[in-house]
Amino acid sequence: MPYQEINNVKMGKNAQAFNFVNLYGCEIGENTKIASLVEIQKGVKIGKNCKILTFAFIPTGVTIEDNVFVGPHTCFTNDKWPRATRKDGTLQTEEDWEIVPTLVRKGASIGANSTIVCGVIIGENAMVAAGSVVTKDVPANTLVAGCPAKPVKTIEE
Amino acid sequence: MPYQEINNVKMGKNAQAFNFVNLYGCEIGENTKIASLVEIQKGVKIGKNCKILTFAFIPTGVTIEDNVFVGPHTCFTNDKWPRATRKDGTLQTEEDWEIVPTLVRKGASIGANSTIVCGVIIGENAMVAAGSVVTKDVPANTLVAGCPAKPVKTIEE
Amino acid sequence: MPYQEINNVKMGKNAQAFNFVNLYGCEIGENTKIASLVEIQKGVKIGKNCKILTFAFIPTGVTIEDNVFVGPHTCFTNDKWPRATRKDGTLQTEEDWEIVPTLVRKGASIGANSTIVCGVIIGENAMVAAGSVVTKDVPANTLVAGCPAKPVKTIEE
Repeated sequence: MPYQEINNVKMGKNAQAFNFVNLYGCEIGENTKIASLVEIQKGVKIGKNCKILTFAFIPTGVTIEDNVFVGPHTCFTNDKWPRATRKDGTLQTEEDWEIVPTLVRKGASIGANSTIVCGVIIGENAMVAAGSVVTKDVPANTLVAGCPAKPVKTIEE
Repeated sequence: MPYQEINNVKMGKNAQAFNFVNLYGCEIGENTKIASLVEIQKGVKIGKNCKILTFAFIPTGVTIEDNVFVGPHTCFTNDKWPRATRKDGTLQTEEDWEIVPTLVRKGASIGANSTIVCGVIIGENAMVAAGSVVTKDVPANTLVAGCPAKPVKTIEE
Repeated sequence: MPYQEINNVKMGKNAQAFNFVNLYGCEIGENTKIASLVEIQKGVKIGKNCKILTFAFIPTGVTIEDNVFVGPHTCFTNDKWPRATRKDGTLQTEEDWEIVPTLVRKGASIGANSTIVCGVIIGENAMVAAGSVVTKDVPANTLVAGCPAKPVKTIEE
């Protein structure tokens, strides 16, 4: 596959990544597919049998369990109060902010173009509707939607 | 143009695509411009004289007629209930989901960073405001906005 | 750095850009970091000590002062009523639309996946919450959130 930047990535058996991906220092489980134009940063762990779609952004601090669907244009975050610089005006470095972790549990799905504000847990088998802004934990087996995302119904599957 | 992945694409006369695009199995009409960092998947048909802006995601199932503006970061979808795996925990393949079609009619415009939930028709000359989440059909000559997107006014143009 | 398109860009001392960026005709200040998969267009000026995160889209008409944080998937715009074609059905060119300017003042932060509708000023030290759609000026030292974004509180920092 041409045009890939993949550095220090632990790829499980049959894991695949497509064009124009920027992956570094992360761990991708067996059979997981990473679509084109995706960035996954150091320290991220993604389980087995996941699908990570085009334009997903998965920064340091995010953990994704097995069988998870991450829709196109999904945007995770890892800093609740981002600033470019310190009080003295010099550029912040990794030492200047606390990485706030986010966890997506087994079998959950995140709809297209959703924003996941850091510090939440998205429960097992949950579904985040397309275009949602998730600011709180999402219970297992629950569909959430909106900005901010709220529970819509329990999933009977 | 360096750094392009263009495979099995039928490009009309004077159609153009820029850097870091991932296009496959699709059809692009005459004079249409595809900006950088765009993905267009197999089976997609895009008409003549369209503008597809940076970071647009246009998956299988989407049809775009002539003279359409697709704003930057527009995210279409093609599955109403996406899951990574089957009940038995193995990865879904194309056979496991139904592609839900979406149609954008002639002369419509889709504003920046909008999410288009599949199964809708965006009417002729309609305008989707930036940042909208479209979940229903958009009537012709109508401006819609919001999450979920609702009609704001009729367009007198 | 492989896989970059950087043309006619004035990069300040210690400014950096990463993989798969598409930058042209713009000016990037000292120490500013441009993450991967970013597009910055001609005429854009970005100040010193800024951080521009992955998948940011910064088109012609945008000006960003010093010490600004632009979150991942931030989408600026430059046209209030975008259309692909003229009345006669031929493709619009730069002469056919008015670029509407947007200004981000010193020390402001724009949260992940926000949409910034053109014509606004984001005030000094302001904070735009993740997933917001900004349609009006944001006062200095103010947190805004939502779609459309509204003031939430004054920032005491």
